[in-house]
Amino acid sequence: MKKLLLSASLLAMFSTPLLAGSAFNDAEDAIEYRKGSFQLIRHNMMDLGDMVRGNIPFDASRAQKRAAALAALTTLPWEAFSVPGADKASGDAKAEIWQNLQDFQKKATGFQQDAKALDVAAQSGDQAKVKAAFAAFAKNCKACHDQYKAD
Amino acid sequence: MKKLLLSASLLAMFSTPLLAGSAFNDAEDAIEYRKGSFQLIRHNMMDLGDMVRGNIPFDASRAQKRAAALAALTTLPWEAFSVPGADKASGDAKAEIWQNLQDFQKKATGFQQDAKALDVAAQSGDQAKVKAAFAAFAKNCKACHDQYKAD
Repeated sequence: MKKLLLSASLLAMFSTPLLAGSAFNDAEDAIEYRKGSFQLIRHNMMDLGDMVRGNIPFDASRAQKRAAALAALTTLPWEAFSVPGADKASGDAKAEIWQNLQDFQKKATGFQQDAKALDVAAQSGDQAKVKAAFAAFAKNCKACHDQYKAD
Repeated sequence: MKKLLLSASLLAMFSTPLLAGSAFNDAEDAIEYRKGSFQLIRHNMMDLGDMVRGNIPFDASRAQKRAAALAALTTLPWEAFSVPGADKASGDAKAEIWQNLQDFQKKATGFQQDAKALDVAAQSGDQAKVKAAFAAFAKNCKACHDQYKAD
C-alpha cells in the first residue's frame, strides 16, 4: 500500500523520463539546475554581504542561516556541468570551463571549502570572524566568475 | 584593504539595489528564488526516488548527499512567499496559498521536518528506513501541491 501511494505521488510529479546516467531529465534541466543553484547562492550571499557591509544590522541567527544555506548550496551546481549535452558553453557558462575542467573543479572545491569555513565562522556568532570568512568567500567567488562566467 | 576588495567584488556581482526589508532585488527575484528552490528540491528528490523505486541501484553515500541537500533546500523557498509584490499567485503558485497562509506555513514546516527525518534515515544507511521516510516526504509533498500548486 505504501508502495502504491509512493508510485502514484511520484508519477504525478515526475512524468518526464530521466536522462540516462544522471538525475536530470535532459541537458536543459541540468542547465536550469546549475543556474538555480547559483541564483540561490547569490541570494544567500547577498543577504550576508549586506550584514557584513553594515547595510542591515548584523543578526547572528540570520547569518548562521545564510551561511548554512551556502555550505549546502555550494555543493550542488557542479554535477550539472558534466551532463551530456550540458557540457558546453551556455548562457553565462563560458567554454573556458570545459577547456580547463581540472582548474574549474579545483576552484569549485575551494569554493565549497570557503563556504564551510564561513559556516563555522557564522556558528561562532563572532561578527569579525564572519566578515573575514565572507571576504575570502566573496573574493574566490569573483575570481572564478572573472575566468569562467560571461558578463 | 580587505574592505576595499570585498566592496569591489560585491559591487561587481550585485549591482541591483535590494528591495527594502528583504534580501531580494524585487518581486520577480523572489519568485525566481522560490521557483529555483523547488526545482532543486525536485531534482534531489527525483534521484532519491529513483533509488527507492529500484530504477537505479541504492547507493548509501549518494542517498545521504541527496537527503542532506533536501534538508537544507526545504528551508529556503518560504521567505520568498511574503515579499511585497511576490505575495500573490504567479506561475504555479495558486492564490489559495495567501488565502490559507497559516495552513500553507504549517505544511511548509511539516515538509521541512519530513526532510530532516529523511536525512536522519539516510545517515543510517538503512535502505528500508530511507524508503519509509521518503514515502512520507513524497506523500506530503504531493498533498501540498494538490492544494497550492497549479498543474
